[in-house]
Amino acid sequence: MKQSVCILGATGSIGQSTLKVLEKNSNKYSIFAVTAYSRMHDLVDICKKFLPKIAVVPEEKKDELYQLLKLNRLETIEILTDEDGLTTVASHNDVDVVMAAIVGAAGLIPTLAAVKAGKRVLLANKEALVMSGDIMMQEAKKNSALLLPVDSEHNAIFQCLPENYMSVENNNNEPKLGISRVLLTASGGPFLNTPLAELATVTPSQACKHPNWSMGQKVSIDSATLMNKGLELIEACHLFAISERFVTVVVHPQSIIHSMVQYIDGSTIAQMGNPDMCTPIAHALAWPKRIDAGVSALDLFVNNKLDFQAPDTKKFPALRLARESMQAGGLAPAILNAANEIAVDAFLKDKISFTNISNVVEETLNSLENAQANSLEVILDTDQCARNIAQTYVTKMGK
Amino acid sequence: MKQSVCILGATGSIGQSTLKVLEKNSNKYSIFAVTAYSRMHDLVDICKKFLPKIAVVPEEKKDELYQLLKLNRLETIEILTDEDGLTTVASHNDVDVVMAAIVGAAGLIPTLAAVKAGKRVLLANKEALVMSGDIMMQEAKKNSALLLPVDSEHNAIFQCLPENYMSVENNNNEPKLGISRVLLTASGGPFLNTPLAELATVTPSQACKHPNWSMGQKVSIDSATLMNKGLELIEACHLFAISERFVTVVVHPQSIIHSMVQYIDGSTIAQMGNPDMCTPIAHALAWPKRIDAGVSALDLFVNNKLDFQAPDTKKFPALRLARESMQAGGLAPAILNAANEIAVDAFLKDKISFTNISNVVEETLNSLENAQANSLEVILDTDQCARNIAQTYVTKMGK
Repeated sequence: MKQSVCILGATGSIGQSTLKVLEKNSNKYSIFAVTAYSRMHDLVDICKKFLPKIAVVPEEKKDELYQLLKLNRLETIEILTDEDGLTTVASHNDVDVVMAAIVGAAGLIPTLAAVKAGKRVLLANKEALVMSGDIMMQEAKKNSALLLPVDSEHNAIFQCLPENYMSVENNNNEPKLGISRVLLTASGGPFLNTPLAELATVTPSQACKHPNWSMGQKVSIDSATLMNKGLELIEACHLFAISERFVTVVVHPQSIIHSMVQYIDGSTIAQMGNPDMCTPIAHALAWPKRIDAGVSALDLFVNNKLDFQAPDTKKFPALRLARESMQAGGLAPAILNAANEIAVDAFLKDKISFTNISNVVEETLNSLENAQANSLEVILDTDQCARNIAQTYVTKMGK
Repeated sequence: MKQSVCILGATGSIGQSTLKVLEKNSNKYSIFAVTAYSRMHDLVDICKKFLPKIAVVPEEKKDELYQLLKLNRLETIEILTDEDGLTTVASHNDVDVVMAAIVGAAGLIPTLAAVKAGKRVLLANKEALVMSGDIMMQEAKKNSALLLPVDSEHNAIFQCLPENYMSVENNNNEPKLGISRVLLTASGGPFLNTPLAELATVTPSQACKHPNWSMGQKVSIDSATLMNKGLELIEACHLFAISERFVTVVVHPQSIIHSMVQYIDGSTIAQMGNPDMCTPIAHALAWPKRIDAGVSALDLFVNNKLDFQAPDTKKFPALRLARESMQAGGLAPAILNAANEIAVDAFLKDKISFTNISNVVEETLNSLENAQANSLEVILDTDQCARNIAQTYVTKMGK
């Protein structure tokens, strides 16, 4: 029996990598549904190749998609729309695996729907855990959903944990099963060796030059401020039910080791590989088995030098802010995330300096009262509120 | 219920590390039997501390041990002797775990006895697999013995494999469970950067300076010729039922990564740690759980640089000879091992040059007809025969 897959965000970078892996393993997987937000021509190409049963698009794109599908004699593909459509396919009875690759808050509700339906959920949406980690993990447990990380660092951590890790209970987020510490690796970003004094004047195009991965602008800036690592720290704490006290960030400029787990017997287990998202996607699809990802094996005679150093949280306060938000818990991580989005957008538009990104985030965190994050409504309200406040700080700190 | 442990070779370096780990975990393990060859005072110290039921020594040491035990009011500890004593404790009904840490051919028979009795056998004796790998693995399978490697490299490989690896059948020693390759790391020894032309004149004391581990003379020389890695290659092939074609030796001078496994999805899993044998011993004792080994966690901010390179088999022909022996199979690895022991001994006694160690081994391999290694008698006969022939080459190549 083939596993039936739903790809939320099929035309994005993660979606495309997922399709590559599924194509290589078409004897094991079929595609039941795909969703897209704007790229209708890409979506039709996917439909031609993979013949899904359902495609989900925004209501205003429905006609365009229908005409394109008709042109290709694919009218049998059902078109659903908007959030209803997304949650329908994410929780559909005929779906075994959901790739949650819609970015931003928009991905939150369909991801939660997949979790509530007890699916195997391949998590590529950062916000799901940063904003609503408690809810997501509680629902996963309640509904026996299998939340598997696709982010290269979290997938690496997962690969370094014992196979039964996710199914064993622990208390108070203390390490379990002989684990002593998680080592989350970070490339250090493009400003690893830039003096603190020069950071105030770096430009968006300098900040977007990630040394090892090619990524979108937002995540590139997050990588330059180390906020990306901060958000990943929060995700890791939720996903692996471990307190931030037991997660150390290790700067590893070559990004060959994607993360590590340490054990009480003195062992450190590391997952390494070439920087290709097809590897974590294939791993999360097939776990506990392995499938061909079409990624060449790491050649250590070429990648023959690995370096490590401690992160400089004076130079990169975002990492400290993320850690403090996770310590605080509740709505703090959602506030951090929202404020950061506004601040990064302002930096990209040349409205604030690079160093003021963290300042906007910190001021926003200080301006809002923290509370329990016990419903999606509260979280989404807080998200909006934090954005508004962050915007006022952007104006205040503006150039 | 505590696990009951028998330590074959309790006064040696592995034996002492085992005792350290057991002492740290005395709530989980008790010591049923200990054995020693020459160090009776050390053995009595162990008896005083751990109160085993049985101690095994050579017949000619029995009286000495009895007097020493009596002096300490430990006459209740039963004394057994020689090979009979060793096989009795190794296969004793009251024993759950056997640490096989008697070096050389002398360890072969008691190790096999433990395997035949279906024990959890912690394998620290190199010869068991190099000389009699086929027999050892067949008997382990037949008697449901759990053979767990304590050698740091093999233990590392084991840690990087799926948990069910040992219990899943495969054919023709092809990789299974999504594994594509095993990467066996080597420090490269003290002559990694010595030009080939200078190797002929290096002295035993230069060769004994291992960069990362403190070891005995024999294994230090094996490390300098890379024969140690060759023998480990043979062990790995037997232990993990994998053809040598799928095992690559990677020179990694810092010896922080102890070995790696590559998977078809592009993942490389590595086990790292400080160089302390308590880690693999604790791992093999507790697997699939973990126990405290009393070893400090790896600090990557201190060990902050890892390098890799391909081994130079022109400079270190021992590695090629070992690989060819494994390809040939049958008695070839036993011949390789025996000839190497004679050659290393001759080098240590300044009778032959460093580069002639491999020459003695190669000539001996060429002089003896290969055959199936289907009984311990044949293997031990061949071992003796290879030693005699190697000796003639030592004389021929002598200084």
